[in-house]
Amino acid sequence: MTSLEQTCRAELVLANHILARADVLDAFGHVSMRHPERDGHFFMAMSRAPELVEAGDILTYDADATALDADGRAQYIERFIHSEIYRARPDVLAICHHHSPAVMPFSVASVPLVPVYQHGAMIGRHVPLWDSRDDFGDTNMLVTNAMQGASLAQALGPHWMVLMRHHGATVVGTGLRELVFRSVVACKNAEFQYRGMALGPVAGLTEGEIEMAAKVPPAAIDRAWDLWAREG
Amino acid sequence: MTSLEQTCRAELVLANHILARADVLDAFGHVSMRHPERDGHFFMAMSRAPELVEAGDILTYDADATALDADGRAQYIERFIHSEIYRARPDVLAICHHHSPAVMPFSVASVPLVPVYQHGAMIGRHVPLWDSRDDFGDTNMLVTNAMQGASLAQALGPHWMVLMRHHGATVVGTGLRELVFRSVVACKNAEFQYRGMALGPVAGLTEGEIEMAAKVPPAAIDRAWDLWAREG
Amino acid sequence: MTSLEQTCRAELVLANHILARADVLDAFGHVSMRHPERDGHFFMAMSRAPELVEAGDILTYDADATALDADGRAQYIERFIHSEIYRARPDVLAICHHHSPAVMPFSVASVPLVPVYQHGAMIGRHVPLWDSRDDFGDTNMLVTNAMQGASLAQALGPHWMVLMRHHGATVVGTGLRELVFRSVVACKNAEFQYRGMALGPVAGLTEGEIEMAAKVPPAAIDRAWDLWAREG
Amino acid sequence: MTSLEQTCRAELVLANHILARADVLDAFGHVSMRHPERDGHFFMAMSRAPELVEAGDILTYDADATALDADGRAQYIERFIHSEIYRARPDVLAICHHHSPAVMPFSVASVPLVPVYQHGAMIGRHVPLWDSRDDFGDTNMLVTNAMQGASLAQALGPHWMVLMRHHGATVVGTGLRELVFRSVVACKNAEFQYRGMALGPVAGLTEGEIEMAAKVPPAAIDRAWDLWAREG
Repeated sequence: MTSLEQTCRAELVLANHILARADVLDAFGHVSMRHPERDGHFFMAMSRAPELVEAGDILTYDADATALDADGRAQYIERFIHSEIYRARPDVLAICHHHSPAVMPFSVASVPLVPVYQHGAMIGRHVPLWDSRDDFGDTNMLVTNAMQGASLAQALGPHWMVLMRHHGATVVGTGLRELVFRSVVACKNAEFQYRGMALGPVAGLTEGEIEMAAKVPPAAIDRAWDLWAREG
Repeated sequence: MTSLEQTCRAELVLANHILARADVLDAFGHVSMRHPERDGHFFMAMSRAPELVEAGDILTYDADATALDADGRAQYIERFIHSEIYRARPDVLAICHHHSPAVMPFSVASVPLVPVYQHGAMIGRHVPLWDSRDDFGDTNMLVTNAMQGASLAQALGPHWMVLMRHHGATVVGTGLRELVFRSVVACKNAEFQYRGMALGPVAGLTEGEIEMAAKVPPAAIDRAWDLWAREG
Repeated sequence: MTSLEQTCRAELVLANHILARADVLDAFGHVSMRHPERDGHFFMAMSRAPELVEAGDILTYDADATALDADGRAQYIERFIHSEIYRARPDVLAICHHHSPAVMPFSVASVPLVPVYQHGAMIGRHVPLWDSRDDFGDTNMLVTNAMQGASLAQALGPHWMVLMRHHGATVVGTGLRELVFRSVVACKNAEFQYRGMALGPVAGLTEGEIEMAAKVPPAAIDRAWDLWAREG
Repeated sequence: MTSLEQTCRAELVLANHILARADVLDAFGHVSMRHPERDGHFFMAMSRAPELVEAGDILTYDADATALDADGRAQYIERFIHSEIYRARPDVLAICHHHSPAVMPFSVASVPLVPVYQHGAMIGRHVPLWDSRDDFGDTNMLVTNAMQGASLAQALGPHWMVLMRHHGATVVGTGLRELVFRSVVACKNAEFQYRGMALGPVAGLTEGEIEMAAKVPPAAIDRAWDLWAREG
């Protein structure tokens, strides 16, 4: 294993822990990152609760979501979310799929998320809604094969987050730390929007504000990462 | 005591702790499991807050909710919930009665729970509501005898969860881990439904989706159990 | 100091800690108990955040809320709540005044609390609302003298809890553990009612149910106390 | 460094930790205090998550928000909030800018905050709303220069708190402990108001009540500080 790979795996373990402690992931949901050296490949933990993931649990997946080093260990059923989005979106370097309590109400009521504060701009001007029934009718609500993953990737399109009807959400980023940050602030944004809507109409940021505010500098992301990573 | 009994008791202690930490149980509520070898018998803790239950606190009850080894220790008043449901439902191997903050609003407003996400499908297509007044008029709101337990069991019918008006809920399972999982995800489902309904109309999963999504594989349940049990 | 006094003080310290950890008290609010041997006297901590109260902080007050052993230590300004309710209600042996987040919304919106579940019956059929403006016009919103305390006691009347407009609530009990229990379950009841009302109309328990359910046996109260007191 | 300076810095570190643990600040937001000896100067941490701030992280800023001792360390982009409010308001000795979950819904829905309980009176009779679009059109939603800071200071006027549309809030005080106290109770007030409004119309305190209740004695503020500072 190269030293670059080792660094990636260590960051991915931290990302698992951070997202679990931030109530983005619980016993379920997963986070992945592109392999830095092998085209189309990506890293993701074996099937384990994110908070418990250790360096040795990180598996290497190829572009078809086949694990190269599973050695019989269980895998996340929904790994096709990751493979198909990496295939469709070369700019995406990290992905998180989750069912956070902040976002679930919007998934359950099919109400659009809109950016309502500066960091919330990172969810982008439009958060599409994927309804698995459109292409597949009744399912067990999971993304269990490449066709379903591709359908989700198509719904995501060029955006940064996609709501999944009665299921959860998937968030993408151009780097692991950016993805973790976007995933956490998207939950904050959802919570602020939910409570704001209980008080009155919520207009959201203007298009110009979203465009400018979405450019959160890496230093700000690192400031948050340093806080969130302090417990390892 | 057989080694099988010992294993059951250890699992039941863990179930008590997990359900307390997950805010399903607090100082009140209880969880039981069928005796693996004695027909109609079941295990349940003496009257003690679930979070404090230890192996030595587990009592053996017969089919009439008479403790065989209480040695004068206090017993849960509502033990008839368990005996009567085990009598009516041979398929049920574990039962949890609770007053969780997530579910109580539905009990208080008599609003039906519906599955709103994949794991929530485990509550089933229909969650009946038991109103103690129908058979017993005004009571102290507790299930204190076999007749009341049987009435509740009848309301539960073939379902997996029954709301109890102004009281709480009772959840059943075909195994202890499945029951614990169903109890926890039912609370998540209630929370998502509650918040979803504040955003707009909530349709719930389709019947086909419920049927398929309710079949959560044991590996997924074990993944959650491993996380929840990490503190003993 | 008699051994009975010492026991009382130790219980009162525990009551302070329990109520703080249960989010009934925060940096403010207070809990007192009648002196077991001296007529009209009562015990209450010096002015200190309840979570920090130690045995040496417990002061003895006479019937006019004059501390007999303050030695210059600061006292709660609102001690007249306690002296005047003890004067008006010989059956009351313990009192808690608080501004808990669960109850404050009802105080702020002047919406009546009603019992919505079995333990909630302990708040009684009627929770009166005291509006300090009725007798005193604009004030600093605190109960700072005997006249205001007496006005509050009159509003409480024969009941177990009184809401205070834009201020908080005061709860009374026939014993310290019963008071602590009632204070905690009143907050749970308020939370369940608040969330129930968001789902639909909330009828509350019937009068007959309230009368029967309010008789929570001491063993149940002790079960909760044992859980809540486990951290000292 | 004088001993007075050292005391100030130690208090400011505590203020950072207290505000973070009270959910006023998270990875973002900041708190400052005037330099006790140098006109127009103030202390504020380098760009770091408040919960992690240590004594060595406190920088000295001049009246134009230029750090005198940064030694290349990163600075909060929004430091102009502080410099311009100190310039406009000689009575202000401490400032906190935050995006707390309690206050954000009001910022997001542009709904006025009103005092709804005794400590809440400290937010004052009027909490103005600053909309960055009025003077600057679309921005990245941050206060990144002196002109924007001056605009915010003008919106604040003679008040104690200013809501910032789709951004957060800024709170000021005549001393650091008073500021911390006001910041925390403003969040409590926002939460009580939010939940009260879900129950029914919320009138808020009268003008006379606000005037009297706003005068919280230093002893009460110290009582809370002693609790909040117990973890350092």
